[in-house]
Amino acid sequence: MSLNRVTLDRMALNRVTVIGLGLMGGSLALALRRAGLTTHIVGCGRPELQRRALEMSAIDSGSADAGDAVAESDYVFLCTPVETSIALLAKIAPRLKAGALVSDVGSTKNAFAIAAREIFGASAGERVLPGHPLAGREVSGLQHASADLYAGCLWILTPIAVEAKTDPVPAQSGSLPALRLISALEAIGARVIFSTPEEHDRTLAYTSHLPQMLSSALSLTLERRFGAGNPALQVHAGGLRTMLRLAESDPAMWEQIAASNRENLAGALESMEAELRNLRESLGSAEFRTKFEQARKFAKVLRNSKE
Amino acid sequence: MSLNRVTLDRMALNRVTVIGLGLMGGSLALALRRAGLTTHIVGCGRPELQRRALEMSAIDSGSADAGDAVAESDYVFLCTPVETSIALLAKIAPRLKAGALVSDVGSTKNAFAIAAREIFGASAGERVLPGHPLAGREVSGLQHASADLYAGCLWILTPIAVEAKTDPVPAQSGSLPALRLISALEAIGARVIFSTPEEHDRTLAYTSHLPQMLSSALSLTLERRFGAGNPALQVHAGGLRTMLRLAESDPAMWEQIAASNRENLAGALESMEAELRNLRESLGSAEFRTKFEQARKFAKVLRNSKE
Repeated sequence: MSLNRVTLDRMALNRVTVIGLGLMGGSLALALRRAGLTTHIVGCGRPELQRRALEMSAIDSGSADAGDAVAESDYVFLCTPVETSIALLAKIAPRLKAGALVSDVGSTKNAFAIAAREIFGASAGERVLPGHPLAGREVSGLQHASADLYAGCLWILTPIAVEAKTDPVPAQSGSLPALRLISALEAIGARVIFSTPEEHDRTLAYTSHLPQMLSSALSLTLERRFGAGNPALQVHAGGLRTMLRLAESDPAMWEQIAASNRENLAGALESMEAELRNLRESLGSAEFRTKFEQARKFAKVLRNSKE
Repeated sequence: MSLNRVTLDRMALNRVTVIGLGLMGGSLALALRRAGLTTHIVGCGRPELQRRALEMSAIDSGSADAGDAVAESDYVFLCTPVETSIALLAKIAPRLKAGALVSDVGSTKNAFAIAAREIFGASAGERVLPGHPLAGREVSGLQHASADLYAGCLWILTPIAVEAKTDPVPAQSGSLPALRLISALEAIGARVIFSTPEEHDRTLAYTSHLPQMLSSALSLTLERRFGAGNPALQVHAGGLRTMLRLAESDPAMWEQIAASNRENLAGALESMEAELRNLRESLGSAEFRTKFEQARKFAKVLRNSKE
C-alpha cells in the first residue's frame, strides 16, 4: 500500500452511520469517535441498543429505520450478520446520498459482493467497499464493545470488480472516499490488506470457519458421549477447555457465515474429515509419529508467521 | 475421600526415585522436595539431565541405570512416556525393596495396569499404584520443570484390581504406603481422584486424546491446503491460533499415548468424524443453528463444571 499519508491522515469521514449496535458496530463507533474522524455518528438498531449506545457516547443520534439512518451520511457501515447485511444493503440503496460509500464487517465476502453488483450494477465498485476485520471474540453484544477492539487487527478489504475475476485490487479502491476509509481504518489501529471476495472466502473457510466448526463439533461429540451432567467430564485438562473456547461463539452469526460460504466450508470440512480418518488409521504405526511431527512443525511456522 | 489428615499430613515418603527427568519428573521432584516429603531423591535419566537436575536441586543423587536407581527407595515414580514406563517396570521389578510402592504419571493407564499384573501377579495392587496428573503443557523438558506444575491439578489414581473389573477402588489403595502417597500428592497441591484403568482410558480418549488429535489434524489440513510459506496463512485471527496450540505438543509422548489407547481413541475419532459430517450436511439448514446452540450450551456447562 502506498497512500499519501500526509494528505489523508487528517481527513475525516464526516457523517457516519453504523447499522447494527453489537460488539463490532459499537466498537467501530467508539473507535472512530475517539480518533476524531467523524462529525456525527448515527446508530441504527433496536431502541434499547440506541439508548445504551447514546449513554456510552458511541453515537450522536439513533434511528430504528436503516433507510432514515443512512439518508444524510457520507459513510455507512453494516455491522450485522452477513445475510442481514445483504438484506439491509438492498433496503438502504435508494436512500444513500450521492457519493456515500458503504462498507461492512461481515465474515464472508462473496455473497455480499454479488448482492452489491445486483443492487448497484456498474457502480457497485464505487458505492460499496466490503470489509472484514479479523477481530471477533467469543463474547458478543454492545456491552463488550471497546474502542480498542480493532487495534492491531487485520482488516481485509475486498473491492468489488464489476465483472467477477478481473483485477484483484481494482481502481475503485483508489477513489477518494475509499482512500479516506482506508486511512480511517488505519487510524483506529487496523492493518488494512486487500483481497478479492472469492479468494477471501476460500481462505477464511480454512483459517477461520473450519476451526470454529471443529470446536462446535467437538462439543457435540462430547455431549453425545457423556451427556451434560456426567461427573466424568470433570476429568479433563486445559487442552479440552482450549479446544472448546470457540464453541461458545454466537450461533446466529455462524449460521449466516456457514450458509453464505457453504461450498468452501464443505470442502474444508471434507479435507478435515479425511485427515482425521488418516490419523485414525495410522494409530499405532510409524506414520502416526511422522504426521505428528509434521503437524507440530506447521503449527510452529504458523504461530511465528504472525506479527 | 476420607483420610485421616492429622495422622498423614506429616508422613514423609522417605527415599524416592524419580525415573525420567523431563517436565513431569523434574517438577515432581522439585515439588516433593519443597514440601519436605523426602529424605533423599534419586534421579534416573541421561547423564546431562542428572547433572542439570542436581544443579536445580531437584535431586540428591543420580543414576543412569533404573535398577540401581530404585534399589534402596521407598517410592518410585516412572515419569517417562507410557510404553517406556511399561518396559522400565519390568526392568526395575526384581530390584525393588520389599514394601516399595511404584507409581507413574502416564497419560493412559490400562496398558500399564495390565503390564503390572503380568509382572507382579497377585501382589500387583500392593506394589503398583498407577497415576495420571492432568498437568501437561505444550512445552516439555526439564528446563520447564516447576515445583508449581501440579498445584491445583487433578491427579487420577487407578488402583489395580488383581482381576480386571472388580472393585473400582480396591482395598489396596488403603494400604499405608498408598495412603502416604495420596497424602504427599495432596501436599504438593494435587486433587486426588480415583478411577479404574479401563474407565480412565475410555474417558480420557474423549476429554484429552481427541482434542489433541483434532489440533494436529487441523494443522495437517491447513498444510495440505496452503503449504507452509503461503502468505494467505497470515489471514487468520485468534481462533486458529487457539485451535493449533495443542498441535505443538511432544510427538514422542503422543505416539505412545495413541498406541496404548488405540481402540478407545479410534472410537472417539469415528464419533468426531461423524459429527463433522453431520455438521457439514446441515450447512445452510435450520438444523445447523440447532446444533450450534447445543454445542454452545454444552461448552458453557463444561467450562463452568470445573473449579
